Amino acid sequence: MPERTPQDIETPALLVDLNAMEQNLRTMARFFCNRPARLRPHFKNHRVLELAERQMELGAIGITCARLWQAERLVRRGIRSVLIANEVAGDGDLRRFVELSREAPVLLAVDHEEVVRELGRLARSSGVQLNVVVDVELGLKRCGVAPGQPAAELAKAAVAEGLQFRGLMGYEGHLQLLAPGSEKETVVSRAMQSLADTRALIEAEGIPVSVVSCGGTGDYRTAGSYPGITENQAGSYLLMDRSYAAAAPDFHETLVVLATVISVTPGERIVVDAGVKAVSGERGLPVVKNMPGLRLRALHAEHAPIDILEPGVALKPGDRIELAVHYHDATVNLHRRMFGVRNGVVEREFTIEH
Amino acid sequence: MPERTPQDIETPALLVDLNAMEQNLRTMARFFCNRPARLRPHFKNHRVLELAERQMELGAIGITCARLWQAERLVRRGIRSVLIANEVAGDGDLRRFVELSREAPVLLAVDHEEVVRELGRLARSSGVQLNVVVDVELGLKRCGVAPGQPAAELAKAAVAEGLQFRGLMGYEGHLQLLAPGSEKETVVSRAMQSLADTRALIEAEGIPVSVVSCGGTGDYRTAGSYPGITENQAGSYLLMDRSYAAAAPDFHETLVVLATVISVTPGERIVVDAGVKAVSGERGLPVVKNMPGLRLRALHAEHAPIDILEPGVALKPGDRIELAVHYHDATVNLHRRMFGVRNGVVEREFTIEH
Repeated sequence: MPERTPQDIETPALLVDLNAMEQNLRTMARFFCNRPARLRPHFKNHRVLELAERQMELGAIGITCARLWQAERLVRRGIRSVLIANEVAGDGDLRRFVELSREAPVLLAVDHEEVVRELGRLARSSGVQLNVVVDVELGLKRCGVAPGQPAAELAKAAVAEGLQFRGLMGYEGHLQLLAPGSEKETVVSRAMQSLADTRALIEAEGIPVSVVSCGGTGDYRTAGSYPGITENQAGSYLLMDRSYAAAAPDFHETLVVLATVISVTPGERIVVDAGVKAVSGERGLPVVKNMPGLRLRALHAEHAPIDILEPGVALKPGDRIELAVHYHDATVNLHRRMFGVRNGVVEREFTIEH
Repeated sequence: MPERTPQDIETPALLVDLNAMEQNLRTMARFFCNRPARLRPHFKNHRVLELAERQMELGAIGITCARLWQAERLVRRGIRSVLIANEVAGDGDLRRFVELSREAPVLLAVDHEEVVRELGRLARSSGVQLNVVVDVELGLKRCGVAPGQPAAELAKAAVAEGLQFRGLMGYEGHLQLLAPGSEKETVVSRAMQSLADTRALIEAEGIPVSVVSCGGTGDYRTAGSYPGITENQAGSYLLMDRSYAAAAPDFHETLVVLATVISVTPGERIVVDAGVKAVSGERGLPVVKNMPGLRLRALHAEHAPIDILEPGVALKPGDRIELAVHYHDATVNLHRRMFGVRNGVVEREFTIEH
């Protein structure tokens, strides 16, 4: 079969640079291979089962995910050590979690006494062991209970309800994108310390804590080395993007959206066939890769108009350009497939789970 | 089978109010039922084949779409009168257009001489009639050739190449969201007049013009009544959204994203399981429907934190809320299904084409 190149792919298409991605994979794996904290990378960003398997092969102790359905796919693929780093609520979803727990000891984040009580009832009526970690709020102001006593109370409630209390998680998402440096280290360490203190408080009650999960790509060095922390949830490191790059200089951007020029107004603009349905405009507009004479003006629904800033840009309809992805998590979500490219050849095609 | 209610649906889920949608459908159909211009509604917004069929039943003369693959789905569903209101370029896609043209006389927008020449070559080598309309730039600064002589030249080139030149299209997208009133009417009329003038110029060359397509939901009354215009491409009217509502007061908002409360910090915030992967933040944040005491703070990847502004908001994990969709085109694109709800019952499930 002849080699396929990006030129042969229908656009708009999501391309990943395999060399860059594999370097990211190895850089993070190497960091976590010989320290107390281990890597449990997040699945929500890439949602490719093969890539989760690859992360496991390189030493990850399990996978973190955001949704019940993601945990179901991972377990059914054979990855049994899964953390759902978010709350689940509602009768239907809590029952699905019980069913999943028959298959594998999936960890679920909890932050509310009522859910803990409901899970306790379900555990007793089903006879299934349900594993939970208490979600601790570290300043992001999203999910989680306050560190210290409130978290310890919820841990005790989980134990009293007969749940398998496994430990704690926290996500200092508001600190991830800070520029690297000593100031960032200070605030990240403070968040880690409040998790470690909460752990100590719970252990002092005679309740064992085996999991303390936190951290991301933007603070993995500090969070992943902090005493009392057992695992790191970094996810963005694998595919990386423009919006994250300054906060995570150890990793390479890997993604572009390939687009076709469908209209040319000479000296003024081109229009490509990729708009907000193919590349996210959240957090900022994508830029045209390797063509400084072009500036993306806006993302429309189905296209992007791109202004020509320098004379001499000689594109014609049918030519291809690449948009460097600004925010990969929302962009990957817009695609069903991701094409793995190495040295100009499409080497493989990944299925993105939905 | 017992009736299904939104409470039974897995979240996040896209719900459409069937009564409101059907009213929108009828309002627009009635406007176009007895005037020279006819309705060829846009498919890109809803992408539901059944709804396109419903639009045809109520008098649409055909369907407008944005992409080649959309035209393929429509034709294979039996809708033969289709306008691709965008340019197509590149060898592979132009050949696909030729194949599609064997099945139905699909109209394709063109704005570039090189593409016209290539289509001419393909028409001659395949023996297939290829139907084109010349796309005229009306101030949006996206696709299209300038009105007047440049458009007439391209029409002549299409005829010379042996293409079936059918007429003109233009899209005054930059005028759609202006507030209704006489100022808007003036600028819309000016755009329409430049299309009508271009039509006259081409007809003066002895080239018949049977199609002059333009207009949207935001200017359908003016554009749809203007002499010389034969059809209107309005699409947003059917599902309508918050961002469009002020510019199109004849139509009702129909869409919400149903979400589940997964975390509650009493007196401060709730968190729901719908983020940018379930509801678009382009053009503005969605609002929580019917709950003025709640304000969506941001859309994260997988959730939205929602601040509690008034005491007395008593939500608990597992409760459902509805987010009124701000920008429906990008939001519908995030979903595979749309649940049709009437009087609190899920009456049907629509498949969104991807």
